[in-house]
Amino acid sequence: MSIDFSPEVLSNDLIAAGHIIPVGVQGIFGRGPMFEEVLRRFDDYVSRVAAGDQATRMSFPPCLDRKVLERSEYLDSFPQLAGTIFSFTGNEAQHKELIENVHEGRPWTHLQTMTGVCLTPAACYPVYPSFTGTLPEGGRLVDMQNWVFRNEPSPEPTRMQSFRVREFVRVGTPDMVVAWRDLWLQRGIDILQSLGLPAHSEVASDPFFGRGGRMLAANQREQQLKFEVVIPVISQEKPTAVCSFNYHQDHFGKLFDIQTADGEVAHTACLGFGLERIVMALFKTHGMDTAGWPAATREILGL
Amino acid sequence: MSIDFSPEVLSNDLIAAGHIIPVGVQGIFGRGPMFEEVLRRFDDYVSRVAAGDQATRMSFPPCLDRKVLERSEYLDSFPQLAGTIFSFTGNEAQHKELIENVHEGRPWTHLQTMTGVCLTPAACYPVYPSFTGTLPEGGRLVDMQNWVFRNEPSPEPTRMQSFRVREFVRVGTPDMVVAWRDLWLQRGIDILQSLGLPAHSEVASDPFFGRGGRMLAANQREQQLKFEVVIPVISQEKPTAVCSFNYHQDHFGKLFDIQTADGEVAHTACLGFGLERIVMALFKTHGMDTAGWPAATREILGL
Repeated sequence: MSIDFSPEVLSNDLIAAGHIIPVGVQGIFGRGPMFEEVLRRFDDYVSRVAAGDQATRMSFPPCLDRKVLERSEYLDSFPQLAGTIFSFTGNEAQHKELIENVHEGRPWTHLQTMTGVCLTPAACYPVYPSFTGTLPEGGRLVDMQNWVFRNEPSPEPTRMQSFRVREFVRVGTPDMVVAWRDLWLQRGIDILQSLGLPAHSEVASDPFFGRGGRMLAANQREQQLKFEVVIPVISQEKPTAVCSFNYHQDHFGKLFDIQTADGEVAHTACLGFGLERIVMALFKTHGMDTAGWPAATREILGL
Repeated sequence: MSIDFSPEVLSNDLIAAGHIIPVGVQGIFGRGPMFEEVLRRFDDYVSRVAAGDQATRMSFPPCLDRKVLERSEYLDSFPQLAGTIFSFTGNEAQHKELIENVHEGRPWTHLQTMTGVCLTPAACYPVYPSFTGTLPEGGRLVDMQNWVFRNEPSPEPTRMQSFRVREFVRVGTPDMVVAWRDLWLQRGIDILQSLGLPAHSEVASDPFFGRGGRMLAANQREQQLKFEVVIPVISQEKPTAVCSFNYHQDHFGKLFDIQTADGEVAHTACLGFGLERIVMALFKTHGMDTAGWPAATREILGL
């Protein structure tokens, strides 16, 4: 069977099947019942694979303390993707001006003030401040499912402004962290291949801002600090990253004062399953109706 | 057994039990493993009660098309609670200025531009644009679980800036909508009482902005357009709203051009279970460890 890969085909198929519900803005859409069911079943499958690790399960809201964003150096690397949250703090006269502007289609930016919160820029960010101090022997491992925001409106259904990531974060000595990353890189590929998805891993880099960013990206590739597991979803030639592995070395350990039990600066790594992208990869690969999916895939997901 | 009600006691107990993980800002905190487990089990219980209604299940991201916020008149009523999303759209020189300001603790508001998205201000808002047009005979019923944002930092653990609501929205003729609201008002009380929670319903009003807002609130009460199911969580005298029922009459029908099958402007109502607040009510009423909860509560939730 030959599959026709393009962002338009995927988008149209997902909409026609009721899996995504378009709204007036790109990268923000509703998810239909079967989409959500598959997402939940996949997330449960990851939980079964991870069960033996005894990670601490946490959940954070889609909003983050702005001071964590400022401290994290995210704005140094990806200022164009970060979202900050503003609100109205004026009086009744200013409120009158606000709603007149809103109803007459005039700008109302000047009546908004920056709040103490921003959008979560990456699923692992909320947890680092909770590691501050000295880690237990053996380090720590946290398991989360968080909504992430990226300011990148796009007609490609796989490039969302708001999406869920099942994220694991490991903090400890360099050896612990790298061994854990390698274990999960193989597990990630195994999980996706077991569902009949043509997944493989690649060395990757992040979309650093500006000219200086190109050097950072090249350095990241050279040191093999980022891997992605990719699957063809909207293009055969440029498969989509559905799972991402980042080794931060001592970056967060330094920024958030995290020490290992023997007093060294802690190293961290994280991995995230892009849940919406994986659901889209399943629909693209096996068809828009789960009833027609391969028996093995249905059985693993309990569909 | 006498229970000591206060925001501080609840907050301290939830933190000590690992159910909430404080971050640097009020109204934004992590949720621990048992908290999330109870939340999911309660959400599943609501699904079982609602199963016969055959609602259409949807899910929307925590971000909303800003045009929907502008069109909805939310800013007329609650400008102080709405959150808009800004981002950086500058060049490399401006980026340099941005990060210098960030790292030296100076304001950087002026380097942020309003985007086309905002935070979801109420769990029902994302769905109204999808109703535009003529409804089928019998109207429509949608079932969602969405993250909601409110710009109201507070030390009270029940007053969050970001929280999840299990939301049902009914759209159709006035008779359909009111009968459905009344059915669920009783179901809401039954669900919560079956879990051993001392729940009762009250006529309520929304926190409309400014002096004009007082009249709107009085009018809403007089017409009994809003009900809440309340439970003592941080105060015996002022129980906390854990479930909210709003009858909007033709407000959204007019704003989003929704007609019933016989050509009238559609009426809408919604109800939302405040999931975090219900979990907190369960911990407050039955204790911080689910192992000690009443057998009936544990059985219903499958704990």
